[in-house]
Amino acid sequence: MALKMDAAALRDFLERVFPEVSGEFDIRKIEENYLEVTLKVQDKHLRPGGTVSGPSMFALADVAAYLNILSMIGPKALAVTTNCGIDFMRKPLANCDLIAKSQILKLGRSLAVTQCLLYSIGDSMPVARANLTYSLPQEHN
Amino acid sequence: MALKMDAAALRDFLERVFPEVSGEFDIRKIEENYLEVTLKVQDKHLRPGGTVSGPSMFALADVAAYLNILSMIGPKALAVTTNCGIDFMRKPLANCDLIAKSQILKLGRSLAVTQCLLYSIGDSMPVARANLTYSLPQEHN
Amino acid sequence: MALKMDAAALRDFLERVFPEVSGEFDIRKIEENYLEVTLKVQDKHLRPGGTVSGPSMFALADVAAYLNILSMIGPKALAVTTNCGIDFMRKPLANCDLIAKSQILKLGRSLAVTQCLLYSIGDSMPVARANLTYSLPQEHN
Amino acid sequence: MALKMDAAALRDFLERVFPEVSGEFDIRKIEENYLEVTLKVQDKHLRPGGTVSGPSMFALADVAAYLNILSMIGPKALAVTTNCGIDFMRKPLANCDLIAKSQILKLGRSLAVTQCLLYSIGDSMPVARANLTYSLPQEHN
Repeated sequence: MALKMDAAALRDFLERVFPEVSGEFDIRKIEENYLEVTLKVQDKHLRPGGTVSGPSMFALADVAAYLNILSMIGPKALAVTTNCGIDFMRKPLANCDLIAKSQILKLGRSLAVTQCLLYSIGDSMPVARANLTYSLPQEHN
Repeated sequence: MALKMDAAALRDFLERVFPEVSGEFDIRKIEENYLEVTLKVQDKHLRPGGTVSGPSMFALADVAAYLNILSMIGPKALAVTTNCGIDFMRKPLANCDLIAKSQILKLGRSLAVTQCLLYSIGDSMPVARANLTYSLPQEHN
Repeated sequence: MALKMDAAALRDFLERVFPEVSGEFDIRKIEENYLEVTLKVQDKHLRPGGTVSGPSMFALADVAAYLNILSMIGPKALAVTTNCGIDFMRKPLANCDLIAKSQILKLGRSLAVTQCLLYSIGDSMPVARANLTYSLPQEHN
Repeated sequence: MALKMDAAALRDFLERVFPEVSGEFDIRKIEENYLEVTLKVQDKHLRPGGTVSGPSMFALADVAAYLNILSMIGPKALAVTTNCGIDFMRKPLANCDLIAKSQILKLGRSLAVTQCLLYSIGDSMPVARANLTYSLPQEHN
Protein backbone atom coordinates (compact mmCIF):
# COMPACT_ATOMS: atom_id res chain seq x y z
CA MET A 1 0.00 0.00 0.00
CA ALA A 2 1.60 3.23 -1.17
CA LEU A 3 1.78 6.45 0.85
CA LYS A 4 -0.96 8.91 -0.10
CA MET A 5 0.86 11.86 1.50
CA ASP A 6 4.59 12.37 1.91
CA ALA A 7 6.30 14.56 4.54
CA ALA A 8 5.94 17.74 2.46
CA ALA A 9 2.22 17.15 1.88
CA LEU A 10 1.64 16.41 5.58
CA ARG A 11 3.52 19.56 6.64
CA ASP A 12 1.48 21.63 4.23
CA PHE A 13 -1.77 20.09 5.49
CA LEU A 14 -0.82 20.72 9.13
CA GLU A 15 0.01 24.35 8.39
CA ARG A 16 -3.28 24.97 6.65
CA VAL A 17 -5.59 23.11 9.02
CA PHE A 18 -3.81 23.47 12.38
CA PRO A 19 -1.81 26.72 11.98
CA GLU A 20 -1.77 27.34 15.75
CA VAL A 21 0.33 24.22 16.46
CA SER A 22 1.98 23.31 13.18
CA GLY A 23 5.25 25.05 14.11
CA GLU A 24 5.71 22.86 17.19
CA PHE A 25 6.07 19.62 15.25
CA ASP A 26 8.63 18.31 12.79
CA ILE A 27 8.13 15.16 10.70
CA ARG A 28 11.34 13.12 10.65
CA LYS A 29 10.58 9.83 8.98
CA ILE A 30 7.70 8.32 7.10
CA GLU A 31 7.17 4.78 5.87
CA GLU A 32 4.22 2.53 5.17
CA ASN A 33 2.20 2.43 8.43
CA TYR A 34 5.03 4.16 10.32
CA LEU A 35 5.89 7.77 11.13
CA GLU A 36 8.25 9.71 13.38
CA VAL A 37 7.56 13.26 14.51
CA THR A 38 9.30 15.50 17.05
CA LEU A 39 7.96 18.06 19.48
CA LYS A 40 10.14 21.17 19.62
CA VAL A 41 9.88 21.70 23.35
CA GLN A 42 9.10 25.29 24.34
CA ASP A 43 8.35 26.95 27.66
CA LYS A 44 4.63 26.40 27.26
CA HIS A 45 5.17 22.61 27.17
CA LEU A 46 6.97 22.51 30.51
CA ARG A 47 5.99 21.71 34.06
CA PRO A 48 7.82 22.94 37.17
CA GLY A 49 11.25 21.31 37.24
CA GLY A 50 11.70 21.63 33.49
CA THR A 51 9.89 18.42 32.56
CA VAL A 52 7.48 18.18 29.62
CA SER A 53 3.82 18.22 30.75
CA GLY A 54 1.44 15.29 30.33
CA PRO A 55 -0.91 17.21 27.98
CA SER A 56 2.09 18.08 25.75
CA MET A 57 3.04 14.39 25.54
CA PHE A 58 -0.59 13.54 24.78
CA ALA A 59 -0.61 16.19 22.03
CA LEU A 60 2.58 14.75 20.49
CA ALA A 61 1.25 11.18 20.49
CA ASP A 62 -2.03 12.38 18.98
CA VAL A 63 -0.31 14.33 16.19
CA ALA A 64 1.98 11.38 15.44
CA ALA A 65 -0.95 8.97 15.11
CA TYR A 66 -3.00 11.46 13.07
CA LEU A 67 -0.21 12.17 10.56
CA ASN A 68 0.60 8.47 10.38
CA ILE A 69 -3.00 7.69 9.40
CA LEU A 70 -3.29 10.63 6.96
CA SER A 71 -0.12 9.46 5.20
CA MET A 72 -2.02 6.25 4.38
CA ILE A 73 -5.55 7.54 3.64
CA GLY A 74 -4.95 11.08 2.38
CA PRO A 75 -5.92 14.51 3.72
CA LYS A 76 -9.07 13.77 5.72
CA ALA A 77 -9.43 16.35 8.48
CA LEU A 78 -12.42 14.43 9.81
CA ALA A 79 -10.48 11.50 11.23
CA VAL A 80 -11.12 11.91 14.97
CA THR A 81 -9.53 10.37 18.06
CA THR A 82 -12.05 8.13 19.82
CA ASN A 83 -9.83 6.44 22.42
CA CYS A 84 -6.40 7.01 23.87
CA GLY A 85 -4.42 5.17 26.54
CA ILE A 86 -1.07 6.42 27.84
CA ASP A 87 1.45 5.05 30.30
CA PHE A 88 3.81 7.74 31.57
CA MET A 89 6.97 5.85 32.50
CA ARG A 90 9.92 8.18 32.94
CA LYS A 91 10.48 11.90 33.37
CA PRO A 92 11.55 13.43 30.05
CA LEU A 93 15.04 14.94 30.02
CA ALA A 94 15.15 18.71 30.59
CA ASN A 95 16.07 20.90 27.61
CA CYS A 96 15.48 18.10 25.17
CA ASP A 97 12.98 17.69 22.33
CA LEU A 98 10.73 14.63 22.27
CA ILE A 99 10.25 12.17 19.43
CA ALA A 100 7.20 9.96 18.86
CA LYS A 101 7.49 6.75 16.84
CA SER A 102 4.02 5.81 15.66
CA GLN A 103 2.90 2.58 14.07
CA ILE A 104 -0.45 1.67 12.51
CA LEU A 105 -1.62 -1.75 13.71
CA LYS A 106 -4.94 -1.77 11.92
CA LEU A 107 -6.34 0.41 9.18
CA GLY A 108 -9.93 -0.72 8.90
CA ARG A 109 -12.95 0.64 7.12
CA SER A 110 -14.18 2.70 10.05
CA LEU A 111 -11.43 2.45 12.71
CA ALA A 112 -7.65 2.84 12.72
CA VAL A 113 -5.62 1.49 15.67
CA THR A 114 -2.13 2.81 16.36
CA GLN A 115 0.53 2.58 19.04
CA CYS A 116 3.53 4.77 19.71
CA LEU A 117 6.52 5.21 21.96
CA LEU A 118 7.81 8.63 23.04
CA TYR A 119 11.49 9.30 23.75
CA SER A 120 13.66 12.19 24.79
CA ILE A 121 15.75 12.51 21.62
CA GLY A 122 18.99 10.59 22.02
CA ASP A 123 17.74 8.48 24.93
CA SER A 124 17.02 4.76 24.41
CA MET A 125 14.41 4.36 27.15
CA PRO A 126 10.85 5.49 26.30
CA VAL A 127 9.29 8.23 28.45
CA ALA A 128 5.76 7.17 27.52
CA ARG A 129 3.73 4.60 25.60
CA ALA A 130 0.43 5.41 23.92
CA ASN A 131 -2.30 3.66 21.96
CA LEU A 132 -4.74 5.74 19.95
CA THR A 133 -7.84 4.76 18.01
CA TYR A 134 -9.33 6.96 15.29
CA SER A 135 -12.75 6.92 13.73
CA LEU A 136 -12.37 7.33 9.97
CA PRO A 137 -14.73 9.25 7.72
CA GLN A 138 -16.58 6.77 5.53
CA GLU A 139 -15.61 8.46 2.26
CA HIS A 140 -12.07 7.15 2.54
CA ASN A 141 -13.11 3.76 1.13
CA MET B 1 -11.89 10.79 56.00
CA ALA B 2 -11.76 14.58 56.18
CA LEU B 3 -10.59 16.87 53.38
CA LYS B 4 -6.98 17.96 53.85
CA MET B 5 -7.35 20.89 51.41
CA ASP B 6 -10.47 22.92 50.65
CA ALA B 7 -11.14 24.87 47.45
CA ALA B 8 -9.25 27.95 48.64
CA ALA B 9 -6.18 25.90 49.58
CA LEU B 10 -6.23 24.06 46.26
CA ARG B 11 -6.54 27.33 44.30
CA ASP B 12 -3.63 28.78 46.22
CA PHE B 13 -1.53 25.66 45.62
CA LEU B 14 -2.33 25.68 41.88
CA GLU B 15 -1.37 29.36 41.58
CA ARG B 16 1.96 28.85 43.31
CA VAL B 17 3.01 25.57 41.65
CA PHE B 18 1.37 25.82 38.21
CA PRO B 19 1.08 29.60 37.63
CA GLU B 20 1.10 29.16 33.84
CA VAL B 21 -2.24 27.26 33.82
CA SER B 22 -3.92 28.11 37.13
CA GLY B 23 -6.07 30.84 35.55
CA GLU B 24 -7.67 28.38 33.14
CA PHE B 25 -9.35 26.29 35.83
CA ASP B 26 -12.06 26.98 38.38
CA ILE B 27 -12.91 24.63 41.25
CA ARG B 28 -16.68 24.37 41.61
CA LYS B 29 -17.40 21.65 44.13
CA ILE B 30 -15.41 19.53 46.50
CA GLU B 31 -16.46 16.60 48.66
CA GLU B 32 -14.82 13.52 50.10
CA ASN B 33 -13.29 11.67 47.10
CA TYR B 34 -15.13 13.95 44.65
CA LEU B 35 -14.31 17.20 42.89
CA GLU B 36 -15.66 19.33 40.05
CA VAL B 37 -13.51 21.75 38.10
CA THR B 38 -14.18 23.78 34.96
CA LEU B 39 -11.99 24.72 32.03
CA LYS B 40 -12.52 28.32 30.95
CA VAL B 41 -12.28 27.68 27.24
CA GLN B 42 -10.02 30.14 25.40
CA ASP B 43 -8.81 30.37 21.82
CA LYS B 44 -5.73 28.29 22.60
CA HIS B 45 -7.93 25.34 23.62
CA LEU B 46 -9.78 25.22 20.31
CA ARG B 47 -9.50 23.18 17.15
CA PRO B 48 -10.80 24.26 13.74
CA GLY B 49 -14.59 24.40 13.88
CA GLY B 50 -14.58 25.82 17.38
CA THR B 51 -14.37 22.50 19.21
CA VAL B 52 -12.15 21.96 22.26
CA SER B 53 -8.96 20.05 21.41
CA GLY B 54 -8.14 16.59 22.72
CA PRO B 55 -5.05 17.78 24.63
CA SER B 56 -7.16 20.44 26.36
CA MET B 57 -9.67 17.80 27.47
CA PHE B 58 -6.80 15.61 28.65
CA ALA B 59 -5.40 18.56 30.62
CA LEU B 60 -8.78 19.21 32.27
CA ALA B 61 -9.22 15.55 33.27
CA ASP B 62 -5.66 15.48 34.62
CA VAL B 63 -6.13 18.64 36.70
CA ALA B 64 -9.46 17.37 38.04
CA ALA B 65 -7.93 14.08 39.19
CA TYR B 66 -4.85 15.79 40.62
CA LEU B 67 -6.83 18.32 42.68
CA ASN B 68 -9.22 15.57 43.76
CA ILE B 69 -6.32 13.54 45.14
CA LEU B 70 -4.58 16.53 46.74
CA SER B 71 -7.80 17.44 48.54
CA MET B 72 -7.54 14.06 50.29
CA ILE B 73 -3.77 13.74 50.88
CA GLY B 74 -2.63 17.37 51.14
CA PRO B 75 -0.27 19.51 49.01
CA LYS B 76 2.06 16.93 47.48
CA ALA B 77 3.38 18.23 44.17
CA LEU B 78 5.08 14.90 43.58
CA ALA B 79 1.96 12.89 42.86
CA VAL B 80 2.46 11.99 39.19
CA THR B 81 0.15 10.59 36.52
CA THR B 82 1.24 7.08 35.56
CA ASN B 83 -1.65 5.98 33.37
CA CYS B 84 -4.54 7.64 31.58
CA GLY B 85 -7.28 6.28 29.38
CA ILE B 86 -9.77 8.53 27.58
CA ASP B 87 -12.81 7.89 25.41
CA PHE B 88 -13.77 10.90 23.32
CA MET B 89 -17.49 10.49 22.72
CA ARG B 90 -19.06 13.72 21.52
CA LYS B 91 -17.92 17.02 20.09
CA PRO B 92 -17.95 19.67 22.83
CA LEU B 93 -20.36 22.56 22.23
CA ALA B 94 -18.78 25.68 20.70
CA ASN B 95 -18.40 28.73 22.94
CA CYS B 96 -19.01 26.70 26.05
CA ASP B 97 -16.80 25.94 29.06
CA LEU B 98 -16.19 22.34 30.06
CA ILE B 99 -16.70 20.77 33.47
CA ALA B 100 -14.96 17.65 34.79
CA LYS B 101 -16.55 15.57 37.54
CA SER B 102 -13.82 13.48 39.13
CA GLN B 103 -14.19 10.63 41.59
CA ILE B 104 -11.53 8.76 43.54
CA LEU B 105 -12.13 5.00 43.36
CA LYS B 106 -9.05 3.94 45.30
CA LEU B 107 -6.65 5.87 47.45
CA GLY B 108 -3.97 3.34 48.25
CA ARG B 109 -0.55 3.60 49.80
CA SER B 110 1.29 4.03 46.52
CA LEU B 111 -1.44 4.38 43.85
CA ALA B 112 -4.61 6.42 43.49
CA VAL B 113 -7.21 5.44 40.87
CA THR B 114 -9.76 7.97 39.63
CA GLN B 115 -12.39 8.28 36.95
CA CYS B 116 -14.10 11.33 35.55
CA LEU B 117 -16.70 12.47 33.07
CA LEU B 118 -16.38 15.70 31.06
CA TYR B 119 -19.38 17.76 29.96
CA SER B 120 -20.07 20.94 28.08
CA ILE B 121 -21.58 22.99 30.90
CA GLY B 122 -25.36 22.71 30.81
CA ASP B 123 -25.39 19.58 28.64
CA SER B 124 -26.41 16.23 30.14
CA MET B 125 -24.43 13.99 27.79
CA PRO B 126 -20.72 13.57 28.54
CA VAL B 127 -18.22 14.63 25.85
CA ALA B 128 -15.50 12.37 27.25
CA ARG B 129 -14.74 9.75 29.90
CA ALA B 130 -11.33 9.38 31.51
CA ASN B 131 -9.59 7.15 34.03
CA LEU B 132 -6.34 8.34 35.59
CA THR B 133 -3.90 6.61 37.92
CA TYR B 134 -1.42 8.51 40.04
CA SER B 135 1.70 7.30 41.79
CA LEU B 136 1.80 8.81 45.28
CA PRO B 137 4.91 9.98 47.09
CA GLN B 138 5.57 7.58 49.96
CA GLU B 139 5.70 10.29 52.63
CA HIS B 140 1.93 10.72 52.46
CA ASN B 141 1.39 7.72 54.75
CA MET C 1 -35.64 5.21 24.56
CA ALA C 2 -37.40 1.98 25.51
CA LEU C 3 -35.66 -1.30 26.27
CA LYS C 4 -35.62 -3.66 23.29
CA MET C 5 -34.86 -6.71 25.46
CA ASP C 6 -35.85 -7.34 29.06
CA ALA C 7 -34.06 -9.66 31.50
CA ALA C 8 -35.94 -12.75 30.31
CA ALA C 9 -35.13 -12.03 26.66
CA LEU C 10 -31.46 -11.43 27.48
CA ARG C 11 -31.23 -14.68 29.49
CA ASP C 12 -32.80 -16.59 26.63
CA PHE C 13 -30.41 -15.00 24.12
CA LEU C 14 -27.38 -15.81 26.30
CA GLU C 15 -28.45 -19.43 26.66
CA ARG C 16 -28.92 -19.90 22.94
CA VAL C 17 -25.82 -18.07 21.71
CA PHE C 18 -23.34 -18.61 24.58
CA PRO C 19 -24.53 -21.88 26.18
CA GLU C 20 -21.06 -22.65 27.56
CA VAL C 21 -21.06 -19.60 29.88
CA SER C 22 -24.70 -18.61 30.27
CA GLY C 23 -25.06 -20.48 33.59
CA GLU C 24 -22.29 -18.42 35.19
CA PHE C 25 -24.14 -15.12 34.98
CA ASP C 26 -27.34 -13.78 36.52
CA ILE C 27 -29.02 -10.55 35.43
CA ARG C 28 -30.17 -8.61 38.47
CA LYS C 29 -31.37 -5.23 37.29
CA ILE C 30 -32.01 -3.57 33.99
CA GLU C 31 -32.89 0.03 33.18
CA GLU C 32 -32.42 2.38 30.26
CA ASN C 33 -28.65 2.40 29.58
CA TYR C 34 -27.94 0.53 32.82
CA LEU C 35 -27.60 -3.13 33.79
CA GLU C 36 -26.39 -5.21 36.71
CA VAL C 37 -25.20 -8.79 36.34
CA THR C 38 -23.53 -11.16 38.78
CA LEU C 39 -20.83 -13.78 38.29
CA LYS C 40 -21.58 -16.95 40.27
CA VAL C 41 -18.03 -17.62 41.34
CA GLN C 42 -16.92 -21.22 40.83
CA ASP C 43 -13.60 -23.00 41.27
CA LYS C 44 -12.61 -22.31 37.66
CA HIS C 45 -12.79 -18.54 38.29
CA LEU C 46 -10.32 -18.63 41.18
CA ARG C 47 -6.64 -17.95 41.57
CA PRO C 48 -4.45 -19.33 44.37
CA GLY C 49 -5.58 -17.77 47.64
CA GLY C 50 -9.25 -17.98 46.68
CA THR C 51 -9.37 -14.69 44.80
CA VAL C 52 -11.23 -14.26 41.51
CA SER C 53 -8.86 -14.26 38.51
CA GLY C 54 -8.29 -11.26 36.23
CA PRO C 55 -9.68 -13.03 33.15
CA SER C 56 -12.86 -13.88 35.10
CA MET C 57 -13.31 -10.22 36.04
CA PHE C 58 -12.69 -9.23 32.44
CA ALA C 59 -15.32 -11.77 31.32
CA LEU C 60 -17.87 -10.38 33.78
CA ALA C 61 -17.28 -6.77 32.68
CA ASP C 62 -17.54 -7.82 29.04
CA VAL C 63 -20.81 -9.71 29.56
CA ALA C 64 -22.26 -6.80 31.54
CA ALA C 65 -21.46 -4.30 28.78
CA TYR C 66 -22.66 -6.66 26.05
CA LEU C 67 -26.02 -7.34 27.71
CA ASN C 68 -26.39 -3.65 28.54
CA ILE C 69 -25.99 -2.76 24.86
CA LEU C 70 -28.24 -5.58 23.61
CA SER C 71 -30.99 -4.42 25.97
CA MET C 72 -30.98 -1.15 24.03
CA ILE C 73 -30.42 -2.32 20.42
CA GLY C 74 -31.91 -5.82 20.41
CA PRO C 75 -30.41 -9.29 19.83
CA LYS C 76 -27.39 -8.53 17.65
CA ALA C 77 -24.74 -11.20 18.23
CA LEU C 78 -22.39 -9.26 15.97
CA ALA C 79 -21.67 -6.43 18.40
CA VAL C 80 -17.97 -6.97 19.14
CA THR C 81 -15.64 -5.59 21.79
CA THR C 82 -13.02 -3.36 20.18
CA ASN C 83 -11.36 -1.83 23.24
CA CYS C 84 -11.25 -2.53 26.93
CA GLY C 85 -9.42 -0.85 29.80
CA ILE C 86 -9.47 -2.24 33.34
CA ASP C 87 -8.06 -1.04 36.64
CA PHE C 88 -7.79 -3.82 39.20
CA MET C 89 -8.02 -2.04 42.55
CA ARG C 90 -8.75 -4.49 45.36
CA LYS C 91 -8.64 -8.22 45.90
CA PRO C 92 -12.17 -9.66 45.64
CA LEU C 93 -13.49 -11.28 48.82
CA ALA C 94 -13.12 -15.07 49.00
CA ASN C 95 -16.29 -17.17 48.68
CA CYS C 96 -18.26 -14.23 47.37
CA ASP C 97 -19.98 -13.65 44.03
CA LEU C 98 -19.15 -10.53 42.03
CA ILE C 99 -21.57 -7.95 40.65
CA ALA C 100 -20.93 -5.64 37.69
CA LYS C 101 -22.82 -2.36 37.36
CA SER C 102 -22.63 -1.28 33.73
CA GLN C 103 -23.64 2.03 32.24
CA ILE C 104 -23.86 3.08 28.60
CA LEU C 105 -22.22 6.48 28.07
CA LYS C 106 -22.70 6.67 24.31
CA LEU C 107 -24.80 4.61 21.95
CA GLY C 108 -23.73 5.84 18.55
CA ARG C 109 -24.35 4.64 15.04
CA SER C 110 -21.22 2.50 14.87
CA LEU C 111 -19.73 2.59 18.40
CA ALA C 112 -21.08 2.10 21.92
CA VAL C 113 -19.03 3.27 24.92
CA THR C 114 -19.68 1.83 28.37
CA GLN C 115 -18.15 1.89 31.81
CA CYS C 116 -18.67 -0.39 34.77
CA LEU C 117 -17.66 -1.00 38.35
CA LEU C 118 -17.21 -4.48 39.82
CA TYR C 119 -17.90 -5.29 43.47
CA SER C 120 -17.80 -8.28 45.76
CA ILE C 121 -21.51 -8.53 46.56
CA GLY C 122 -22.26 -6.69 49.80
CA ASP C 123 -19.03 -4.66 49.76
CA SER C 124 -19.15 -0.92 49.05
CA MET C 125 -15.64 -0.55 47.59
CA PRO C 126 -15.19 -1.57 43.96
CA VAL C 127 -12.69 -4.34 43.17
CA ALA C 128 -12.27 -3.15 39.58
CA ARG C 129 -13.24 -0.45 37.09
CA ALA C 130 -13.63 -1.11 33.38
CA ASN C 131 -14.42 0.78 30.20
CA LEU C 132 -15.47 -1.15 27.12
CA THR C 133 -16.15 -0.03 23.56
CA TYR C 134 -18.18 -2.08 21.11
CA SER C 135 -18.41 -1.89 17.37
CA LEU C 136 -22.05 -2.15 16.34
CA PRO C 137 -23.38 -3.93 13.28
CA GLN C 138 -24.68 -1.31 10.86
CA GLU C 139 -28.14 -2.90 10.50
CA HIS C 140 -29.09 -1.70 13.99
CA ASN C 141 -29.94 1.74 12.68
CA MET D 1 20.58 -7.40 33.22
CA ALA D 2 20.61 -11.20 33.28
CA LEU D 3 17.50 -13.41 33.30
CA LYS D 4 16.59 -14.61 36.79
CA MET D 5 14.39 -17.42 35.45
CA ASP D 6 14.75 -19.35 32.20
CA ALA D 7 11.96 -21.14 30.34
CA ALA D 8 12.30 -24.32 32.41
CA ALA D 9 12.13 -22.39 35.69
CA LEU D 10 9.10 -20.42 34.52
CA ARG D 11 7.29 -23.60 33.41
CA ASP D 12 7.99 -25.21 36.75
CA PHE D 13 6.75 -22.11 38.61
CA LEU D 14 3.57 -21.98 36.52
CA GLU D 15 2.83 -25.66 37.18
CA ARG D 16 3.26 -25.30 40.92
CA VAL D 17 1.43 -21.99 41.41
CA PHE D 18 -1.19 -22.07 38.63
CA PRO D 19 -1.75 -25.81 38.02
CA GLU D 20 -5.26 -25.24 36.68
CA VAL D 21 -4.02 -23.27 33.64
CA SER D 22 -0.36 -24.18 33.24
CA GLY D 23 -1.12 -26.80 30.57
CA GLU D 24 -2.73 -24.20 28.28
CA PHE D 25 0.43 -22.17 27.76
CA ASP D 26 3.78 -22.89 26.14
CA ILE D 27 6.81 -20.61 26.46
CA ARG D 28 8.51 -20.27 23.09
CA LYS D 29 11.20 -17.63 23.43
CA ILE D 30 12.75 -15.68 26.22
CA GLU D 31 15.21 -12.79 26.12
CA GLU D 32 16.05 -9.82 28.30
CA ASN D 33 12.75 -7.91 28.71
CA TYR D 34 11.07 -10.02 26.03
CA LEU D 35 9.05 -13.24 26.03
CA GLU D 36 6.84 -15.21 23.67
CA VAL D 37 4.18 -17.62 24.88
CA THR D 38 1.44 -19.51 23.04
CA LEU D 39 -2.11 -20.39 24.01
CA LYS D 40 -3.01 -23.94 22.99
CA VAL D 41 -6.55 -23.16 21.88
CA GLN D 42 -9.14 -25.61 23.25
CA ASP D 43 -12.92 -25.72 23.07
CA LYS D 44 -13.25 -23.76 26.30
CA HIS D 45 -11.43 -20.80 24.72
CA LEU D 46 -13.83 -20.50 21.82
CA ARG D 47 -16.83 -18.34 21.02
CA PRO D 48 -19.58 -19.24 18.55
CA GLY D 49 -18.09 -19.30 15.05
CA GLY D 50 -14.86 -20.88 16.27
CA THR D 51 -13.13 -17.64 17.25
CA VAL D 52 -11.07 -17.27 20.43
CA SER D 53 -12.97 -15.40 23.18
CA GLY D 54 -11.95 -12.02 24.55
CA PRO D 55 -11.33 -13.35 28.07
CA SER D 56 -9.02 -16.02 26.62
CA MET D 57 -7.01 -13.35 24.78
CA PHE D 58 -6.89 -11.28 27.96
CA ALA D 59 -5.64 -14.37 29.87
CA LEU D 60 -2.90 -14.97 27.30
CA ALA D 61 -1.70 -11.34 27.37
CA ASP D 62 -1.73 -11.40 31.18
CA VAL D 63 0.29 -14.64 31.38
CA ALA D 64 2.78 -13.35 28.80
CA ALA D 65 3.39 -10.13 30.76
CA TYR D 66 3.56 -11.97 34.09
CA LEU D 67 6.13 -14.52 32.88
CA ASN D 68 8.08 -11.77 31.14
CA ILE D 69 8.36 -9.87 34.42
CA LEU D 70 9.14 -12.97 36.52
CA SER D 71 11.97 -13.84 34.13
CA MET D 72 13.58 -10.54 35.14
CA ILE D 73 12.79 -10.35 38.87
CA GLY D 74 12.53 -14.02 39.91
CA PRO D 75 9.63 -16.12 41.26
CA LYS D 76 7.42 -13.55 42.97
CA ALA D 77 3.83 -14.76 42.94
CA LEU D 78 2.77 -11.45 44.45
CA ALA D 79 3.27 -9.35 41.35
CA VAL D 80 -0.31 -8.31 40.53
CA THR D 81 -1.93 -6.76 37.47
CA THR D 82 -3.13 -3.25 38.27
CA ASN D 83 -4.11 -1.98 34.82
CA CYS D 84 -4.76 -3.50 31.43
CA GLY D 85 -5.79 -1.98 28.11
CA ILE D 86 -6.62 -4.10 25.07
CA ASP D 87 -7.54 -3.29 21.49
CA PHE D 88 -9.22 -6.20 19.73
CA MET D 89 -8.42 -5.68 16.06
CA ARG D 90 -9.06 -8.81 14.04
CA LYS D 91 -10.89 -12.09 14.46
CA PRO D 92 -8.39 -14.85 15.32
CA LEU D 93 -8.16 -17.64 12.76
CA ALA D 94 -10.24 -20.73 13.55
CA ASN D 95 -8.36 -23.88 14.58
CA CYS D 96 -5.19 -21.97 15.22
CA ASP D 97 -3.16 -21.39 18.40
CA LEU D 98 -2.36 -17.83 19.47
CA ILE D 99 1.05 -16.38 20.28
CA ALA D 100 1.73 -13.35 22.49
CA LYS D 101 4.92 -11.33 22.07
CA SER D 102 5.48 -9.39 25.28
CA GLN D 103 7.98 -6.63 25.92
CA ILE D 104 8.88 -4.89 29.18
CA LEU D 105 9.02 -1.12 28.69
CA LYS D 106 9.76 -0.19 32.29
CA LEU D 107 10.86 -2.29 35.23
CA GLY D 108 10.69 0.13 38.13
CA ARG D 109 10.89 -0.28 41.86
CA SER D 110 7.16 -0.60 42.38
CA LEU D 111 5.65 -0.77 38.86
CA ALA D 112 6.40 -2.72 35.69
CA VAL D 113 4.93 -1.58 32.37
CA THR D 114 4.63 -3.99 29.45
CA GLN D 115 3.07 -4.14 26.02
CA CYS D 116 2.31 -7.09 23.79
CA LEU D 117 0.89 -8.08 20.45
CA LEU D 118 -1.17 -11.22 19.91
CA TYR D 119 -1.16 -13.17 16.64
CA SER D 120 -2.78 -16.27 15.19
CA ILE D 121 0.36 -18.38 14.72
CA GLY D 122 1.64 -18.01 11.19
CA ASP D 123 -0.28 -14.80 10.48
CA SER D 124 1.58 -11.47 10.21
CA MET D 125 -1.27 -9.19 11.28
CA PRO D 126 -1.93 -8.90 15.03
CA VAL D 127 -5.35 -9.92 16.34
CA ALA D 128 -4.95 -7.77 19.46
CA ARG D 129 -2.70 -5.28 21.24
CA ALA D 130 -2.41 -5.05 25.01
CA ASN D 131 -0.63 -2.97 27.63
CA LEU D 132 -0.39 -4.29 31.16
CA THR D 133 0.94 -2.72 34.34
CA TYR D 134 1.98 -4.76 37.37
CA SER D 135 2.50 -3.71 40.95
CA LEU D 136 5.69 -5.36 42.21
CA PRO D 137 6.24 -6.66 45.72
CA GLN D 138 8.76 -4.42 47.44
CA GLU D 139 11.13 -7.25 48.40
CA HIS D 140 12.30 -7.57 44.78
CA ASN D 141 14.74 -4.70 45.20
